[in-house]
Amino acid sequence: MKQVNVQVAVIGAGSAGLSAYRAAKQTTDSVVLIEGGTYGTTCARVGCMPSKLLIAAAEVAHSAAHTEPFGIVIDGQINIDGKKVMQRVRDERDRFVGLVVDAIDEIDPQDKLIGNVKFLTETQLQLDDHTTVNAQRVVIATGSRPTYPNAWDDLGDKLIVNDDVFDWQDLPSSVAVFGPGVIGLELGQSLHRLGVEVLMFGMGGKVGPFTDPEIMDYAEKTFSDEFYLDADAKVNNMQLNGELVEITYIDKQGKEQIKHVEYVLAATGRRPNVDNLGLEQIAIDFDDRGVPVADPHTMQTSISSIFIAGDASNQVPLLHEAADQGKIAGRNAAIYPNIVTGLRRSAIAAVFTDPQLAMVGLSYQQVTEKLGGCDCFETGSVSFENQGRSRVMLKNKGLLHLYGEQGTGRFLGAEIIGPQAEHLAHLLAWAHQNRMTISQMLEMPFYHPVIEEGVRTALRDLNAKLKLGSAMTSECMECGPGC
Amino acid sequence: MKQVNVQVAVIGAGSAGLSAYRAAKQTTDSVVLIEGGTYGTTCARVGCMPSKLLIAAAEVAHSAAHTEPFGIVIDGQINIDGKKVMQRVRDERDRFVGLVVDAIDEIDPQDKLIGNVKFLTETQLQLDDHTTVNAQRVVIATGSRPTYPNAWDDLGDKLIVNDDVFDWQDLPSSVAVFGPGVIGLELGQSLHRLGVEVLMFGMGGKVGPFTDPEIMDYAEKTFSDEFYLDADAKVNNMQLNGELVEITYIDKQGKEQIKHVEYVLAATGRRPNVDNLGLEQIAIDFDDRGVPVADPHTMQTSISSIFIAGDASNQVPLLHEAADQGKIAGRNAAIYPNIVTGLRRSAIAAVFTDPQLAMVGLSYQQVTEKLGGCDCFETGSVSFENQGRSRVMLKNKGLLHLYGEQGTGRFLGAEIIGPQAEHLAHLLAWAHQNRMTISQMLEMPFYHPVIEEGVRTALRDLNAKLKLGSAMTSECMECGPGC
Repeated sequence: MKQVNVQVAVIGAGSAGLSAYRAAKQTTDSVVLIEGGTYGTTCARVGCMPSKLLIAAAEVAHSAAHTEPFGIVIDGQINIDGKKVMQRVRDERDRFVGLVVDAIDEIDPQDKLIGNVKFLTETQLQLDDHTTVNAQRVVIATGSRPTYPNAWDDLGDKLIVNDDVFDWQDLPSSVAVFGPGVIGLELGQSLHRLGVEVLMFGMGGKVGPFTDPEIMDYAEKTFSDEFYLDADAKVNNMQLNGELVEITYIDKQGKEQIKHVEYVLAATGRRPNVDNLGLEQIAIDFDDRGVPVADPHTMQTSISSIFIAGDASNQVPLLHEAADQGKIAGRNAAIYPNIVTGLRRSAIAAVFTDPQLAMVGLSYQQVTEKLGGCDCFETGSVSFENQGRSRVMLKNKGLLHLYGEQGTGRFLGAEIIGPQAEHLAHLLAWAHQNRMTISQMLEMPFYHPVIEEGVRTALRDLNAKLKLGSAMTSECMECGPGC
Repeated sequence: MKQVNVQVAVIGAGSAGLSAYRAAKQTTDSVVLIEGGTYGTTCARVGCMPSKLLIAAAEVAHSAAHTEPFGIVIDGQINIDGKKVMQRVRDERDRFVGLVVDAIDEIDPQDKLIGNVKFLTETQLQLDDHTTVNAQRVVIATGSRPTYPNAWDDLGDKLIVNDDVFDWQDLPSSVAVFGPGVIGLELGQSLHRLGVEVLMFGMGGKVGPFTDPEIMDYAEKTFSDEFYLDADAKVNNMQLNGELVEITYIDKQGKEQIKHVEYVLAATGRRPNVDNLGLEQIAIDFDDRGVPVADPHTMQTSISSIFIAGDASNQVPLLHEAADQGKIAGRNAAIYPNIVTGLRRSAIAAVFTDPQLAMVGLSYQQVTEKLGGCDCFETGSVSFENQGRSRVMLKNKGLLHLYGEQGTGRFLGAEIIGPQAEHLAHLLAWAHQNRMTISQMLEMPFYHPVIEEGVRTALRDLNAKLKLGSAMTSECMECGPGC
C-alpha cells in the first residue's frame, strides 16, 4: 500500500477541484489532486459547453425557418443533417475537454493521484486498494450526477441523461423530456428546433428557474406554444415496446394518450457525489439531503479541516460559482487554521433557451420571504412584446420583473424571460453587487434602440411604485420611439 | 401678422425638441413648439429605427446563408424579395413615426406652431411671413441633415442619402457607398447582405467610430473581407451614364477600374441645421463649423437666454444624448435665469454592424491626449477569435481594448469590435459612470459561457499591466474552458 503525506488533498479534478488545487498551490507546495473517473469537467464534457453547441445549431435552424416576415424566402428544403449537427457538437466539445486535459497535463505528476476515495478518518483517505493519503486538510470537490426515479432503469438504454445526448452520432426522431428545468428546457427546445419530436413533462407545474408566478406562467405559455409541455403532467405508464418507449399519459385536455418515443431524457435533477465517500466514517454534519453543511463564505464544513466546493456542496451548481467556491476552499485548506472569508458575488443565472431566462440577485421568493410581510418591496415590470428593438428583430416575447426595496430604493433582484436576457442579467447583476438604487440605475446610460431600454421602462415603473420618480408616460417625449 | 408671446420657444419638434418642450412644460405653461418641416424625428424617420429594420433583414439573410457549419443544409435558393424587405422596413418605420406623431397630437394645439424660423433679435422669431413669436427664452433644436460635396448634385436622383434608402420600393442591384462611418457601414453591410453589390469608399483611412489604430485596422480588415472597401480611396471621376453612375477609381492594387452602379449613397457626414436660422442677426458665438457654442452641462449658448440641444448643437449626435440635452435645455429655458447643470452620462455609442462596433467612456485618442504623455494609462486587450462562446456561435471575430489609469486603477474607456458589442458597451458604460476600478470590475459576476468572459480576460490583462493583479494563465483552472 502506497503512503502519501500531504498538507492538502483535493478530491475531484473538475471545475471546483482544479480551482481549489490552484488556490492551494499558491500557498503550499504540498497538495494532491485526486480524480476517480476520467479527466474533463462536467461543464466541458456534458454541461455548459456542449449544450451551447447544440443550442447554436438549433438557433440557426430556427432562424432559417423563420425568414419570411423579413422578406427572405427560402425556396427549397431546410435539411437538418443530424449526423453533421452532432459531429460539430462532439468535435467542439472534445476541443473544450482537450483544453481541460491539457491544463491537467501541465500539473506536476507527483501532485496527481487516480482512485476512488473513501474517508477512513478526518485526515486519512483510502484510494481504491492501492494508496493511503494522510492529508492534514481535505477539499471535497466531487461534483454531481443526474438523478431520476429508480424504476426508470427498466427502460434500459432508452433512458438517457444529458451526458448521453452529447455522444449521439445522429439525432433521434422523438424524445420525451422529463423535467422542464434548466437542462430540460435547453435540450428539449434545441432538439425540437432540430426537428426532433419533443414531449416535455414536469411535476408540480414548475418551469425553468423561476419563483415569480407571473414570469413562470409566461414561460410555461411560451414554451407550450412551441412544443408539447405539460408542467404538471400525469404520466400513468412508461414501458419498453420493441425499440421504442411507450408512454401513457393524460393530456392537458384530460384525455388519455399513448405515444411512442425513441428516448426518455431524464432531466429531473442532479445529486451531489457525496454518498460514496465513506463520510459516514467521520462525524461530519449533513443537511437533510445528506450533503455536508458548509459556510458559503469559507466553504468550511462542520469538521474544521474539511472544506467542500462546487456541485458537491449543493449550494449553487453553476460553473462560475464552482470556480469561486474552489478558490475559497483551496486557499482556506492551505492557510488553515487561520481561514478567511472569500468573495461571493451577486447571484446570476442564465438559461440559453429562446427567449432566454435569467435570475439576478434575490429571487421573488427570497424577496417575499424577507420583505413581503411588511409590504416593503415593489415590483417593476416590462413586457418585451412591444419593446422597440425586440420588435424590430421579431424577438418580441418576454416579461421582466425587477424588485426594489421601499425606503432605501435599492435594487434587490430580477426574474427575466426575454430576448438577450443573458446580457440584461449581467448589467443587473453588476448593479446589484454595486448596491445601486433604482434611481441610480436610471442615471446610467442607455443607448437607442436597444433591448436594455426595456430594463429602463421597468426601472421607471419600479421607481414610480417606490414613490421616487414618475412613471414613463410618453416614450417619444422621453427616450425616443420604441424605447 | 400673428403675434405670439411666450416664455419659452422650442425650435424643432424632433427628439431634442420634444424632450425640451416636455421639460419646459414641467415648470411653465407658456411654451411653444415650432416645427418647420413634417412631424416625426430623424431617429424614427431616417435614423436608428429604419436602419435597424434593414439590418434585421440582412442578419436573417446572412444567417440563412451560413448554416452549413452547424450541419443545417439549405437545399434550394435563398430568395431575397427586395419589395417585401423594403415593405417591412417602411411599414415598421411608419409605425414608429406614427408613435411620434401620436405623441405630438396629444400636445395642446395652442402650443404648436408651424413655420420656418428666422431670428430677428435674441427674443424675436419670425415664422415664414405669418407669425412673430416674442420668446423670452429660446431652445434651438433644429437637428441636422446629410452633407456631401456640391459637385455630386450632378448625379441627380442617382445620388442618395440615408433618408432615400428607407423610401425604396425595392432593392437596387448595386450601390457605391461613400463614407465608411457609422451610417455608411450599417447601410452598406446590410445592403451587401441583402444581395446588393456594394462598393465602399472612404477618405483618409478612417473606418467606423474608432480612434484606436489597432481596433480600426481590425475593422477595416473585417469589412474588407466581406465587400469591397477602400478606406483611403482614389476616385478619379463620377458621372451619369444612362441610368447608371460610372465611377472611375484606382483600386487597392493600384489599377484603374471603371464600375457602374445604380446609386451613389452619400454617407459623408451630417451638418447641424443652424445655417438658415438668421443667427447672423444676433451676436451669438460660433465654433469653427458655424455652430453656436454651448456649455454641455447647461446647454446655454453665449447668449444667456438661448439654449441649444440635439444634433443642432453638434456635440454628440445620438438619440439618447439628444433626449438628455433637450431635457437640460428645456428645463433651463424654463427656470432661467437660475439655470442648473443637468445629468450628462458616460459616453456610449454602438454601431449595429456584424461584428458590432462600440465606444465607451473616453476614446483611445482622448485617453492618449489626457494621459499619454506620462505613460499614465495601459491598454487591456482580448481577441474574440478564440473566445469560447463566440466560437460556439461562430461569431468569433473581434478585438476589444480597455483603457485603465495607472495609480488609481480606474476604468477610463473602451473601443470594441466584436459580437454583441452593444451589450458589452452597456456593461462597460455603467461601470465607467460608476467610476469603477479594474479590480472592482473583476469582482463582479460573470456567467459561463458568455461573451462577457472576453471582457474579463481583457480586464485581467489590464489589471496585470497596471500591476494590480495577475494575468490569466490557465483559463481552465480559473474560469472554465472557453471563458
